[in-house]
Amino acid sequence: MPSGKFIVIEGLEGAGKSSAMASVVNHLHAKGIATQTVREPGGTKLAEAIRDLVKGDWEEKLTAETELLLMYASRSQLVENVIKPALAKGIWVIADRHDLSSRAYQGGGRQLGDEKLTALRKLVLGDFVPDLTLLLDVDPQKGLARARERGELDRIEQEDVAFFERTRNRYLEIAENDANICVINSNQDMESVHRDLLHELEQHLFN
Amino acid sequence: MPSGKFIVIEGLEGAGKSSAMASVVNHLHAKGIATQTVREPGGTKLAEAIRDLVKGDWEEKLTAETELLLMYASRSQLVENVIKPALAKGIWVIADRHDLSSRAYQGGGRQLGDEKLTALRKLVLGDFVPDLTLLLDVDPQKGLARARERGELDRIEQEDVAFFERTRNRYLEIAENDANICVINSNQDMESVHRDLLHELEQHLFN
Repeated sequence: MPSGKFIVIEGLEGAGKSSAMASVVNHLHAKGIATQTVREPGGTKLAEAIRDLVKGDWEEKLTAETELLLMYASRSQLVENVIKPALAKGIWVIADRHDLSSRAYQGGGRQLGDEKLTALRKLVLGDFVPDLTLLLDVDPQKGLARARERGELDRIEQEDVAFFERTRNRYLEIAENDANICVINSNQDMESVHRDLLHELEQHLFN
Repeated sequence: MPSGKFIVIEGLEGAGKSSAMASVVNHLHAKGIATQTVREPGGTKLAEAIRDLVKGDWEEKLTAETELLLMYASRSQLVENVIKPALAKGIWVIADRHDLSSRAYQGGGRQLGDEKLTALRKLVLGDFVPDLTLLLDVDPQKGLARARERGELDRIEQEDVAFFERTRNRYLEIAENDANICVINSNQDMESVHRDLLHELEQHLFN
């Protein structure tokens, strides 16, 4: 049985990842492809418990390194216990965030630098990489306005706009040097975003 | 004000770390030195929550990488929020386990290798190292027998003897190449262990 493909949806808060996930899943189902969706951080009992720690409000300062290590701890659990077994069964896995989020948020936003991030990535994930990453690029102000409409913001979502500008810039820098990352203009209306999204999906995985 | 010193007590289960901690603290107090004791994993609210995750019983496999990352996440919190601020105030910090435990248990016991471990150490802790590490070396069978007498064993303490043999060997290998790590023969009676312990403490930090 051929292995499933691993597709990641990335982007800032309010970029439209949830509806993009649904659109990709529907498109694959219409082709008769079995899928499984996951989110990061989280996706296993332990990984969800780690997610709660990361998202929690702590009196002490949560260091940038701790945040990063918790993200990768959650990721290691998810990859080994859920993603790899599903791919081995021929199921396609669609992830709401993965490794690229750490490189953009902790590496760019928190300014830990990409060298530290790629070293840690190598250490934890080895050569495991997505088949395709769809990066929904949105203006931070616009994304945050959308996120605010949805309700309360969590610890990371309460950062200032400069943080999200740095995160966005890092996203785009990395995408420029990686042919498996497609940038989708997510400032457009939703219909256009989904059209572009499915076009890239077709181009990269069904051509 | 001169900075405090950072002293770490290391060793396998049942090596006698707790009574060694007390002995070192008493010795320093008799000299009028202010001390603070910490334990790893743990030592802050978030670090203790991470400790609970590491020590917990999970249905899913807790990968060796996740265990390692959680240990370092806890360590980063403790070092930045507790150890460094105490040292800066001139307080001596005595730790029940630190970085060397990860190198011995995850690097040796779980066979992740010392290269991964030293890379991660550098990434999280940079150049921060203890002034002195006192390694209580005990025969694994003897140590485990002592630990069993104390009551229930946790997830890590339930590993087989070969795991602890690998851990002990890695401890000794690292100590051989680091002049700041003193090996204390902990197979002796407690009085002799404490005599050797305080002798090394005096030699290294008060000479």
